[in-house]
Amino acid sequence: MPEFLKLIPTQQALQILLSEIQVKVSRERVLATNSLARVTAEAINSPIPLPTFPRSTVDGYAVRAADTFGASESLPAYLRVIGEILMGNSPGFDINPGETGLIHTGGMLPDSSDAVVMVEYTQQVGADTVEILRSVAIGENIIKIGEDVQSGEEVISSGVRIRPAEIGGMAALGILELEVAKKPVVGIISSGDEVISPEGKLLPGQVRDINSYSLSALIDQAGAIPKRYGIFPDQADQLEAIAARALDECDIVLITAGSSASARDLTAGVINNLGSPGVLVHGVNIKPGKPTILAVCNHKVVIGLPGNPVSALVIAGLFVVPVIESLLGLSNVGVHTRLLARLSTNVPSQAGREDWVAARLYASGSGYQVDPIFSKSNLIFSLVRANSMIRVPPDATGLSAGDLVEVQLLS
Amino acid sequence: MPEFLKLIPTQQALQILLSEIQVKVSRERVLATNSLARVTAEAINSPIPLPTFPRSTVDGYAVRAADTFGASESLPAYLRVIGEILMGNSPGFDINPGETGLIHTGGMLPDSSDAVVMVEYTQQVGADTVEILRSVAIGENIIKIGEDVQSGEEVISSGVRIRPAEIGGMAALGILELEVAKKPVVGIISSGDEVISPEGKLLPGQVRDINSYSLSALIDQAGAIPKRYGIFPDQADQLEAIAARALDECDIVLITAGSSASARDLTAGVINNLGSPGVLVHGVNIKPGKPTILAVCNHKVVIGLPGNPVSALVIAGLFVVPVIESLLGLSNVGVHTRLLARLSTNVPSQAGREDWVAARLYASGSGYQVDPIFSKSNLIFSLVRANSMIRVPPDATGLSAGDLVEVQLLS
Repeated sequence: MPEFLKLIPTQQALQILLSEIQVKVSRERVLATNSLARVTAEAINSPIPLPTFPRSTVDGYAVRAADTFGASESLPAYLRVIGEILMGNSPGFDINPGETGLIHTGGMLPDSSDAVVMVEYTQQVGADTVEILRSVAIGENIIKIGEDVQSGEEVISSGVRIRPAEIGGMAALGILELEVAKKPVVGIISSGDEVISPEGKLLPGQVRDINSYSLSALIDQAGAIPKRYGIFPDQADQLEAIAARALDECDIVLITAGSSASARDLTAGVINNLGSPGVLVHGVNIKPGKPTILAVCNHKVVIGLPGNPVSALVIAGLFVVPVIESLLGLSNVGVHTRLLARLSTNVPSQAGREDWVAARLYASGSGYQVDPIFSKSNLIFSLVRANSMIRVPPDATGLSAGDLVEVQLLS
Repeated sequence: MPEFLKLIPTQQALQILLSEIQVKVSRERVLATNSLARVTAEAINSPIPLPTFPRSTVDGYAVRAADTFGASESLPAYLRVIGEILMGNSPGFDINPGETGLIHTGGMLPDSSDAVVMVEYTQQVGADTVEILRSVAIGENIIKIGEDVQSGEEVISSGVRIRPAEIGGMAALGILELEVAKKPVVGIISSGDEVISPEGKLLPGQVRDINSYSLSALIDQAGAIPKRYGIFPDQADQLEAIAARALDECDIVLITAGSSASARDLTAGVINNLGSPGVLVHGVNIKPGKPTILAVCNHKVVIGLPGNPVSALVIAGLFVVPVIESLLGLSNVGVHTRLLARLSTNVPSQAGREDWVAARLYASGSGYQVDPIFSKSNLIFSLVRANSMIRVPPDATGLSAGDLVEVQLLS
């Protein structure tokens, strides 16, 4: 079993792989309205200050603050109302000492005013006079020019995945297009003499291809484009030919191995023939997923995934997704939010190996509880029944009921 | 200020809204390969058992377990190797007492065998004889027919959002198409005399439309289709005409109000004229987002969102997303995973009101720390700088540095 001679810890294996590739992010220009979930390929600087004019944050009266100093309910200040500032317009008048103008939330302050008194602290007396019942400080109830964003300020960094907030921010600045990372193309080759297409009718001994489809969905979620090459028998020449074509056409190539040990060894040989440096890691210290192969051939990542569908999906989450994120130029590669949850049942594990166990997480009191789903040999529907995976760290000899454990949501 | 006469707590307001609509999920048929993130509109039952044949979980020898009883390194059992079971084929032979066959991981067991001995616990002696160095129990190293899924078993419930695991599970069963909920169409109307399109050149007093775009992205993320109607002035007749058209064409209608108090009151009147029962909630006990309007008009949800872009996005997350989820028939409506994080700085708050504060969350030791981002008047770029929101519960009079607080990730 040459593959298991030297098992590399997960984090170290990922480091070895990522350090072997030089990432040059390919860019394309997209409309801001089509950029949700894309990753910025350039920093965006604001062409304008925001707001572009001093705005009132309340409904009230625009004043010179000095005119209100000392004003109180018992001793109001009296100001002459010289007009109303209409929304979406420049005020059209200045505020001289002793004057004020009615203003609405979001309205533009007249040049010579420097504060707004909330309407709640005013009392209209007669047609053009208002009582000010409270003093305001200079700048009170105002957003100044550039208080949100200065002109020229970097507002969105390079390597950021666009969310609704960024889409809104770009609209505010009038930014209609931006440079984003091109979606990497990930080729998927399924191998295994026992594997047939989902459309096919099963003969005895045959199973349908799961990995091509579950991996396609994961790749799509991660922001890349899956390209399925189909199913190939466990024969070196056929696998090598299709892998070479995929390496040429894609940015990343995945080969899911047949499930027998000889099929796995075959994959390693095929990958080594694709290009240099070839296989970097053969065997990761993790369950499920031990027979994982990590390689770089002619500057492109090639990963040999285990044939077991649960192993393939877990390993793709831990290795393929970070490689995609890296090719997208994402600033936080491989950072996933993990919850802490109270474990309901003991989980056995072998010390010195990282284990991932399918689980159901649910809210319980102020925190979370998690039930492991034990399944023989990692059957696909154990993952369908799960909403999360429990991580058993390499230094643990199992986890105990009641422990607070690390849980990764499955989305 | 009629809108603030009676502030309803967030959860109660959502209840009032959801209890007023009768959800009939509209369905459509899609290819399983195109169903990622869609919501199932029917339960899926397995047409077959999985696996469809008894499979070996290891590389080794298929045996009758009884033939191995008592076998050990010092006293091996000797079995005659009568053939190899090729991957993807039926064995082609039976195992009679004293016989065995070479089998690979995932291979199909011969009818009369009932266990597999791992290759590690065997020793080949001569051309057709193998030593068995350890006994196996009946069923050991085997997955039985139907052990993952029974024929007819419900494998995916109705109201489930499809993930890579479900895509894989359907492939395994040969399910090529399924019924999913049609994506609801959400109409977005922007109002405000001060609001112009992002393409436009700003004149003094004008701001660009943010909400139409940030809300579109949020609606897209939630699994619905945004339909933007554009920007309308704060005039009842124009707003009513476009809202009536949107109500006709969409499943949900959002109207983001101009930011002045009079513009907000205008929205409530417009909504009340659209259909019965009209406005159900006017004013929610939350910051930001107090002036929120929740309504049902002719069996469709109409929501009046605050004009402030941060308020609009927060309120849409709390009310629009659950309504979309409800129309999709999702089984868990409005359930969001929240992390607990250690607060770095005091957060002031008014007792009796739910507050949401933009924040930056980061891993710290075994848990998370969260820094609130204080921003005057909820400027859009405070949300761009944030990766999360801190929830201050209604019964809290502020949160203190060092408290473990509830945090919702912004995606």
